[in-house]
Amino acid sequence: MKCTILTVGTEILFGSITNTNAVYLSRQLNALGIDVMYHMTCGDNPGRLKELLAYAYEDCDMVITTGGLGPTEDDLTKENIAEFFGERNVLWEDQLEVLRKHFPGDMPKNNLKQAYFPENNCTILKNPNGTAPGFMIEKNGRIIASLPGPPKEMQPMFENELRPLLLARQDSVLRYKNIRTFGIGESQLEMELLDIIDAQTDPTLATYASSFETTLRIASKRRTAEEADAAIEETLAKVRERIGQYIYSEDGEDLGCVVLDMMRERGLRLSAAESCTGGAFGKSVTDIPGSSDVFDRSLVTYSWDAKMQELGVKRETLERFGAESDEVAMEMADGLYRASGSDVCVSVTGFAGPGGGTEDKPVGTFFVGLRYQGITRSFRFMTKRANRARVREYAAVEMMRTVYKALTGRL
Amino acid sequence: MKCTILTVGTEILFGSITNTNAVYLSRQLNALGIDVMYHMTCGDNPGRLKELLAYAYEDCDMVITTGGLGPTEDDLTKENIAEFFGERNVLWEDQLEVLRKHFPGDMPKNNLKQAYFPENNCTILKNPNGTAPGFMIEKNGRIIASLPGPPKEMQPMFENELRPLLLARQDSVLRYKNIRTFGIGESQLEMELLDIIDAQTDPTLATYASSFETTLRIASKRRTAEEADAAIEETLAKVRERIGQYIYSEDGEDLGCVVLDMMRERGLRLSAAESCTGGAFGKSVTDIPGSSDVFDRSLVTYSWDAKMQELGVKRETLERFGAESDEVAMEMADGLYRASGSDVCVSVTGFAGPGGGTEDKPVGTFFVGLRYQGITRSFRFMTKRANRARVREYAAVEMMRTVYKALTGRL
Repeated sequence: MKCTILTVGTEILFGSITNTNAVYLSRQLNALGIDVMYHMTCGDNPGRLKELLAYAYEDCDMVITTGGLGPTEDDLTKENIAEFFGERNVLWEDQLEVLRKHFPGDMPKNNLKQAYFPENNCTILKNPNGTAPGFMIEKNGRIIASLPGPPKEMQPMFENELRPLLLARQDSVLRYKNIRTFGIGESQLEMELLDIIDAQTDPTLATYASSFETTLRIASKRRTAEEADAAIEETLAKVRERIGQYIYSEDGEDLGCVVLDMMRERGLRLSAAESCTGGAFGKSVTDIPGSSDVFDRSLVTYSWDAKMQELGVKRETLERFGAESDEVAMEMADGLYRASGSDVCVSVTGFAGPGGGTEDKPVGTFFVGLRYQGITRSFRFMTKRANRARVREYAAVEMMRTVYKALTGRL
Repeated sequence: MKCTILTVGTEILFGSITNTNAVYLSRQLNALGIDVMYHMTCGDNPGRLKELLAYAYEDCDMVITTGGLGPTEDDLTKENIAEFFGERNVLWEDQLEVLRKHFPGDMPKNNLKQAYFPENNCTILKNPNGTAPGFMIEKNGRIIASLPGPPKEMQPMFENELRPLLLARQDSVLRYKNIRTFGIGESQLEMELLDIIDAQTDPTLATYASSFETTLRIASKRRTAEEADAAIEETLAKVRERIGQYIYSEDGEDLGCVVLDMMRERGLRLSAAESCTGGAFGKSVTDIPGSSDVFDRSLVTYSWDAKMQELGVKRETLERFGAESDEVAMEMADGLYRASGSDVCVSVTGFAGPGGGTEDKPVGTFFVGLRYQGITRSFRFMTKRANRARVREYAAVEMMRTVYKALTGRL
């Protein structure tokens, strides 16, 4: 199957927002074995949308659109698609019922159009996260699926509604495993596995660099899921021999989940003391449902006063070594232990930029402190990607890695 | 002038990288008053690239490409463009000289093609940041500019080489303002302004829904920036009359920045006590460079113990009303004030889900506490979008809104 991803939205042509929907859908479709031939974006303009559809179907048998399903006058995607396919939009009473439930009081009049869909050949894609349902039309060998623009609505709709429909029409089964690693770069990882990668056509191996780590994807397309899984397992055994020490998950799990599971099993409690991350570590831990079993608190001590009052960091230490130092990171971890009594106490302090930093400790330098099993240590990190958001994100990641290494005896 | 941005690169169709070039170029071109009609992406495939060019020129008089100017075999953009325009690529001796300087020793043979350019109608766009120069062809009323893919090469080339060439041919200027609001939905906002929206061709008004708020964009294209600004201001005055009470920024600024600026100006300090948000509020504040002037600390008290120890919340209150209650939110704010002495102390506690919640307080219910000017209050919120990430994000947003309302006397 060949597919075009067609994004509708003037705000994308203005550069006001980034087209992350095309990225998400490309990954998902490629994973299903569907070839993405084009990304196209146009504004909310009837003529252009229909012309792009005509163009796309010269090469492709499927188009997925995102955007333009909202209630306002310039949301025209649904009307244009119906017209292109020679269908008529009519009121779907059951969808009107669903829609009304979104509004505590009276439904604004212009939302009514969100209950209109093509009369024939149309499957509704449910949207529990917003007022705009999606839909799929299949007609004359052409498929179109239309999803809402906001990623928080679009992604669950793809996952839960559209993906199963697409999966059902593939005559082979694609299975894959995402092997997550840290401590090894993408090109290094590829070199370690090059002969395996080159020798194999199925399973295929592909590496992806994402935020501060590398994922290896092993995929197999076979007649049955069992055959595919067995093939993947055989390749995975070879991969483990080569790069086993870098692998932290063989089923795509986040490091935070891996760490929380280990701690939950061992009955351990986790607390954090954050400075430069400003709460990002606490947020990343509590993003995980059920984290309250393990996570006790995070003391975000941004000012000197806060560090002294909440964590008992000594003014002398702050003055002598600076707030961004091994010494302060360790005092933060110790103070956190006194306050919380948690089994694992992790801390961070550093220069996220854009201001700050010294000659010895340029922006991008940070210190992770850890108190575990009665021992307090500190580790220095540096990233040259001296962009505030990235330094902060990276610091939160290294806090979690430090905890992981401690728990697995690799510190 | 009407323009298509054409991105060449298979890695984008795989979803391996995000097309940030289209975002950057869209902003830059719109700022020059050039209409961006389409974004298009295809792989490194000769046939498809030429077909897309033909398609683009039906509507547009300019195409800007990025990518495919590298030295490897699959970098074909330059060859395809020359062919499309009926030009012949020849060796430019002066470009060969420039190219050689990039290599300390011998130049790899396959880089030679980077010194080939169309013989006629071609202007070279210099690239001090890489080996691939760009170029512009102007022929038969059609313009094409071809830029390299890496943003660090593409952006300076646009800024220093292409922008001046484009600026010279513009006879109008596009200016715009993003008016940010909260407390009013997109369809409601559109209804309030419908007659203005319908009556005007310039300035144009468009609404955008983003995370929990609505932005109104007022744009004007006139002969000079002064004329455009005056036209925008005139429309904005009418908009203010209708929906003034919902506007928090008239220049697209985030609410957090608006709040921090107000507090900085008044010499106020901010602290937070977080439960269900797990640090997300602290993170959102400290995402803003320079927040340390205003932000003191956030105490992320996830467990009962943490709430009692760090904030002096009474066990009795927790037992009687539950940790997720107005009473606990207020005790958290008061305890935070005792610990920090900050002028504005904001707290939050609630049910983010997926577990938890009661009949009275379903998942999605949270309480924001605020101590300001000696008075402590609590506000109850509820979102039916009962997805953990969204509840948490929304709670952090409502904390900031509560602070904003207090500072502007709207609580």
